[in-house]
Amino acid sequence: MSSNIHSVVIVGFGGMGKYHAELIKENNSLEVVGTYDVLEARRTDSAKAGYKVYESYEEVLADPAVEIVLIATPNDVHKEIAVRALQAGKHVICEKPVAMSKEELQEMLAAADAAGRVFMVHQNRRWDEDFLTIKKMYDQEIIGSLFQIESRVHGANGIPGDWRHVKAQGGGMLLDWGVHLLDQLLFMIDSKVTSVSSSLSFILGNDVDDGFEAILQFENGIKAIVEVGTTNFITLPRWYVKGIEGTGIIEDWSLTGRLVTRNNEGQKIEPKPIRAGVGLTKTMAPPSEGATITEALPQPAALSSSFYDNFAAVIEGTAEPIVKNSEVLRVQNLIEAIFESAEKNQVLKDFDMYGEGK
Amino acid sequence: MSSNIHSVVIVGFGGMGKYHAELIKENNSLEVVGTYDVLEARRTDSAKAGYKVYESYEEVLADPAVEIVLIATPNDVHKEIAVRALQAGKHVICEKPVAMSKEELQEMLAAADAAGRVFMVHQNRRWDEDFLTIKKMYDQEIIGSLFQIESRVHGANGIPGDWRHVKAQGGGMLLDWGVHLLDQLLFMIDSKVTSVSSSLSFILGNDVDDGFEAILQFENGIKAIVEVGTTNFITLPRWYVKGIEGTGIIEDWSLTGRLVTRNNEGQKIEPKPIRAGVGLTKTMAPPSEGATITEALPQPAALSSSFYDNFAAVIEGTAEPIVKNSEVLRVQNLIEAIFESAEKNQVLKDFDMYGEGK
Repeated sequence: MSSNIHSVVIVGFGGMGKYHAELIKENNSLEVVGTYDVLEARRTDSAKAGYKVYESYEEVLADPAVEIVLIATPNDVHKEIAVRALQAGKHVICEKPVAMSKEELQEMLAAADAAGRVFMVHQNRRWDEDFLTIKKMYDQEIIGSLFQIESRVHGANGIPGDWRHVKAQGGGMLLDWGVHLLDQLLFMIDSKVTSVSSSLSFILGNDVDDGFEAILQFENGIKAIVEVGTTNFITLPRWYVKGIEGTGIIEDWSLTGRLVTRNNEGQKIEPKPIRAGVGLTKTMAPPSEGATITEALPQPAALSSSFYDNFAAVIEGTAEPIVKNSEVLRVQNLIEAIFESAEKNQVLKDFDMYGEGK
Repeated sequence: MSSNIHSVVIVGFGGMGKYHAELIKENNSLEVVGTYDVLEARRTDSAKAGYKVYESYEEVLADPAVEIVLIATPNDVHKEIAVRALQAGKHVICEKPVAMSKEELQEMLAAADAAGRVFMVHQNRRWDEDFLTIKKMYDQEIIGSLFQIESRVHGANGIPGDWRHVKAQGGGMLLDWGVHLLDQLLFMIDSKVTSVSSSLSFILGNDVDDGFEAILQFENGIKAIVEVGTTNFITLPRWYVKGIEGTGIIEDWSLTGRLVTRNNEGQKIEPKPIRAGVGLTKTMAPPSEGATITEALPQPAALSSSFYDNFAAVIEGTAEPIVKNSEVLRVQNLIEAIFESAEKNQVLKDFDMYGEGK
């Protein structure tokens, strides 16, 4: 019944909408047939790019040629656009963060269920090679079982753009970048989050956070530190992970990094004390020569298919979604716990939706 | 009444005792005249080094030629040795961590008061140049007012030595290294700690912590992260600090580092979006060319004198102690709060002794 190429209308033709249009050009499962945007300038952009320009959202929904609505608007209008699309019988791809609250998301998921249509959130950073390199290390215990995972994204530009400054539109760094970093961790680590503590940063004087730090403790013993900053003129490494046998680092998006592990073949030589500052230390002396091995990062893990191909296969009933809605709901719930922990300055426990709705 | 060279007996002639002996050779205020150690091998070391070897602690205390007892034993016996020395009319220099508990320290301070003798803890890392460089930045707001201070010490050797593994002797990294890093922060930042959260690491299977992380929130708005690890085969920077105008980093003990600040003279150019992983980001793009300035670290701040000279001057009544006992007690209290926060996995508030006993 379904063709092999599925038609997409992009709603919201800003930076992300245009980026989707470019990426879908390279994809064989989906095809962008048109766009809708409330701003005149973006309708002009779309026409120039050769897409059909819908004059109203009603027109999109009424067009039987449209199979999929892709939502790339500010966050506060995701819900209404998604629910109306689902009710009109369209499948929906929604940008992240999916919703303003867990309740909004639940409403969206109920609409998808009622309509029997596919709803999938574009958690595209599950496909990032830096993350998939860490995932390989985690799954295959390349530096031994990982027990500490630090995931940081640092910039010095403040919060760019317009609506990303505005609380009512779902701005702020916890929602914008936190949703990716948290989604990656929960996707990789199959264990319950037993506690979270966090703090938000408001250095730039916006009404939304310009950065945050959250510390997650998992039931399986892993501690994860997730940090986003937009006032960091020097960046700390994108990933810093500790395993039983060594440490791994990925400096940046270019996948510069290395593994340093204990050399179990080497002689056991006590390190020599060094003078560090005005004191002596053996504890913090560099390991003796030959005591460690430095290696290149492993190749990234591979996911079963691209986001768009997976979405098409789910529509066609031939695959399970890689980004499951129960996972997206769990991340949304975790984000709300992080906001609450920061506001109360308390460690939160017993909140995680791990295992629910699987 | 007092001579200008004060006689010292070192009690505990292990690594730190010997290090003191070497350092005091270069000092004009103090002179090591003898040592006492319970181990035969160390008595031999001391004799070889030309020091008088006391056969018992009683003999040290009974010797009127001894003005100062310097305690460099395991932590669990500091108190008894110190109290007996003070009661015998000696001044005392004590290694860190000063005591097993706040109560022990209070007993030591009461003995010093009762005897009218000087008791000072060797918090020598207040003189570390890396710390004094950060202190200069803090005091002079070189990258603007600092609002985040991250102080880390990472090693890969586990916990070396013998008694440092043993809880009953005051082992573990929070007591061994934490006491330095926390002392530095409280010495530098004149503000109350309003909350602390922490976790300890027990990866090596000792009965003491092999590392910890503590997050301190100060009343003046500063957030500090203090972390010690002994299973870090790759080290994160010794210091990472964020100010309103820029970021500073000190990589290691060799004072490799830099400042990167906003270029207020430069044109305001929006950064260009970059492709990072599979996504686009303007937020995390590097700042535009000319938007920042990179500078060398400033010269370290200077303290009024060396530890030993200050100790001698305090004995002579010509100076206030640089390491005040009220400060040492406050750090001990903070350490106990960090243990409690980690054990309960809670944020602790309303515990800081800021301003008490000043």
